[in-house]
Amino acid sequence: MASRPNVAFIGLGAMGMGMAVHLLEDGFAVTGFDFNLMALEKLLIMGGAAAANPRECIQDASFVICMVANSAKTEKAFFADSTGAVFGLTQNAIVILCSSVAPGFPVKILGRIHQDFQRPDIQLLDCPVSGGTIRAARGMLNIMSSGPTDILNIAQPILESMGENLYEIEGGLSAANKVKLVNQHLANIHIAVSAEAMGLAATLGVNTKEFYQTVLKGPACSCMFEARVPHMLSNDWTPHSAISIFIKDMRMVTSQGILHHLPLYIASSTERLYQYAARMGYGKDHDSNLVRIFLPQTPSLVSEATTHCQSPDASRASELICHLLETVHTLAAIEALALGNKLGISTSTLTSIISNVAGVSESFKKVASQILAGDLLSGITITHTRNKLKEVITLAQMHNYPLQLTATTFNLLQKAVTYGMGGEGQAALLKLWTTSNLSTEPLHITEYDSVTPSEL
Amino acid sequence: MASRPNVAFIGLGAMGMGMAVHLLEDGFAVTGFDFNLMALEKLLIMGGAAAANPRECIQDASFVICMVANSAKTEKAFFADSTGAVFGLTQNAIVILCSSVAPGFPVKILGRIHQDFQRPDIQLLDCPVSGGTIRAARGMLNIMSSGPTDILNIAQPILESMGENLYEIEGGLSAANKVKLVNQHLANIHIAVSAEAMGLAATLGVNTKEFYQTVLKGPACSCMFEARVPHMLSNDWTPHSAISIFIKDMRMVTSQGILHHLPLYIASSTERLYQYAARMGYGKDHDSNLVRIFLPQTPSLVSEATTHCQSPDASRASELICHLLETVHTLAAIEALALGNKLGISTSTLTSIISNVAGVSESFKKVASQILAGDLLSGITITHTRNKLKEVITLAQMHNYPLQLTATTFNLLQKAVTYGMGGEGQAALLKLWTTSNLSTEPLHITEYDSVTPSEL
Repeated sequence: MASRPNVAFIGLGAMGMGMAVHLLEDGFAVTGFDFNLMALEKLLIMGGAAAANPRECIQDASFVICMVANSAKTEKAFFADSTGAVFGLTQNAIVILCSSVAPGFPVKILGRIHQDFQRPDIQLLDCPVSGGTIRAARGMLNIMSSGPTDILNIAQPILESMGENLYEIEGGLSAANKVKLVNQHLANIHIAVSAEAMGLAATLGVNTKEFYQTVLKGPACSCMFEARVPHMLSNDWTPHSAISIFIKDMRMVTSQGILHHLPLYIASSTERLYQYAARMGYGKDHDSNLVRIFLPQTPSLVSEATTHCQSPDASRASELICHLLETVHTLAAIEALALGNKLGISTSTLTSIISNVAGVSESFKKVASQILAGDLLSGITITHTRNKLKEVITLAQMHNYPLQLTATTFNLLQKAVTYGMGGEGQAALLKLWTTSNLSTEPLHITEYDSVTPSEL
Repeated sequence: MASRPNVAFIGLGAMGMGMAVHLLEDGFAVTGFDFNLMALEKLLIMGGAAAANPRECIQDASFVICMVANSAKTEKAFFADSTGAVFGLTQNAIVILCSSVAPGFPVKILGRIHQDFQRPDIQLLDCPVSGGTIRAARGMLNIMSSGPTDILNIAQPILESMGENLYEIEGGLSAANKVKLVNQHLANIHIAVSAEAMGLAATLGVNTKEFYQTVLKGPACSCMFEARVPHMLSNDWTPHSAISIFIKDMRMVTSQGILHHLPLYIASSTERLYQYAARMGYGKDHDSNLVRIFLPQTPSLVSEATTHCQSPDASRASELICHLLETVHTLAAIEALALGNKLGISTSTLTSIISNVAGVSESFKKVASQILAGDLLSGITITHTRNKLKEVITLAQMHNYPLQLTATTFNLLQKAVTYGMGGEGQAALLKLWTTSNLSTEPLHITEYDSVTPSEL
């Protein structure tokens, strides 16, 4: 084990610490750096070494892992005057960027290292991760990786130590962060629609605990629904993952939509929900607090509703809310695949990876396989989907309940129906994003002079 | 003057009282009813008579004006057991419904009077009003009217007493409430986008008072912006018109969209803003309080920002926010005209009426005249509009500011560009609502096998 290479680990946050400790357990010599001294102390206790700044951290390392919160912090870690990692990199060091960053960022940072700092010997891999803190601590992350294949091969033992599933994404450096971006798109929408659905369930008098169990067993489920709703059901707002992080992530998603001229209707609606929550003062709270946008004055309503006895009305409401989840998930899945395609990531790649990571939902699996098979007609029709969603919208309106993602989704379905796609299956909704040609009928403007102001 | 007919007036609220008093001043004998005893007392002081219930109120009246808050209250006024107006109507009485109700409602209520209560002698006019309490008190309302022409002629002196502008709308009973609905669509969106824009101006450090003056002088102005922003600038939240009323009104608008299979993207976004505001506890507050969705913790930020000195950055921000207002107004105008057309109200009718009522904006006047002229190419292009809106969205994102109506509008522009309409003028956006045919290209799904899970 002693022959294992020295690894520098910059960024010992909730995820990074788990990853670094797992590397230690697998016999790597790990030197860490973080501004948080308690994190450094913990690493020392676990058998690692601690450095005073990134430059010192990486000076004996053939591998440098960077797991800080965002692009700005990554740049600071590498390029800060005199203390930046770039001033101490060993010859032929391999940098592994594990943070989630905008797809263009890995290329940009490698360019600076090569050109601005005259270090063309340095190699870089784009390796964003998914799975959360518990899987990080267990070495069970999902790791998406892209970069030169020979370098990936050299880094393989390190990635295998941290990850349970490793996915190599073709398409060059930054392809992995494109896949990660699509995963974020979905996971973040799923968190938001979980809050929207649970708030509605509570408002309509549905037994929320029973509803949760019902969703888990059926096609309305998503990985995020399963993970986040228990927090709402038990009033547990421990800030494992803060709303402010999601604002950053969603901005990264919607910015890519803007950059590539693709309207991301559902992501854009979701971004606003996170922004509202931050504006309401919940930026540092756990993301399941998003439910407070829908229930601002009674944040415990979801847990209180677990005591409701299900009435026949409530069981109908419960069925409709399941339909709401399924439908929003389906359109989010299609929007995500369209985004992936724009970024140059194929549907089959996305399908196989997303099915195993946080962005997965039952609807995603179903509609993605239909799209892959070119099967745009089977399953329930767009008209049927629209009509059932109309019912839940009408129900919510009677309670002045603001359905955000549902309303956005409804308008898309409505548009598809007016485009004559009502009889097709849900997978056909992909045309709403991919078709680039609107057949223009002559405008029909009724002209008759029916106004006689003041002359009654 | 003594020969003027007896008028019964049911519903002496903020608007109704002004209308009833003006009828008294014009020499009509007015008997009023309201559940609010203070309102009855006021009517007595002004020279009217007071009744204990609707049945008593209308028993000597050849005209019955109903100006209650909504359909449910109208039904109660007419059909309540033993005290309802229907039990006391004189022979050939003419009922004038002035409340804003769903377009189908006047026909429904007349049907009940004729059939269920066997009073085929009763006539009904659909006469919703617009203009607010001050114009009501001055007899200067805008009155939209529909119904049999001979009955409208008989009622003319009464309508002329209450209104400055009378518009007869062709298309039978309920045509007037269709026009009113389109006016609501616009006015309510304009209030919401005023809040969105002023919140952004305050957030970006623009001098809000100067910004208000700039907007008034230019193409970004709307009637509602002019009326509502002064409340925000002076922290005056006196509840002249409550948010809860707008929720009802927007529900009426979006329900018509659902009924007629027309996606009302902007109206639907607006409805959610009013609903959020109510959920946050502002339901009974003045509608300009909507700005608190955007600035929840600093409701006086808009007024505080009046002291800012304009920096060069702020003047660029101010210009972009003007563009935001203009563009949202333009797309709202097009959505409103598309809704009107679906309801059977022509563009020329809407153009001439809306130009004089609360729903008007500079953008409405411009784009409506282009549509009427069939001129879909002149003016700034859709691509240019989109690009400039992108700038303000990016700016807002940097401040985590949740642009709701702007984001909805941006996605519509984006879609139009991908449909190949980027080089056309803004009026061409009408196709997004009217075109019923999506030319379906074969779906292009990139297939390459780039996933090698776990086998790095």
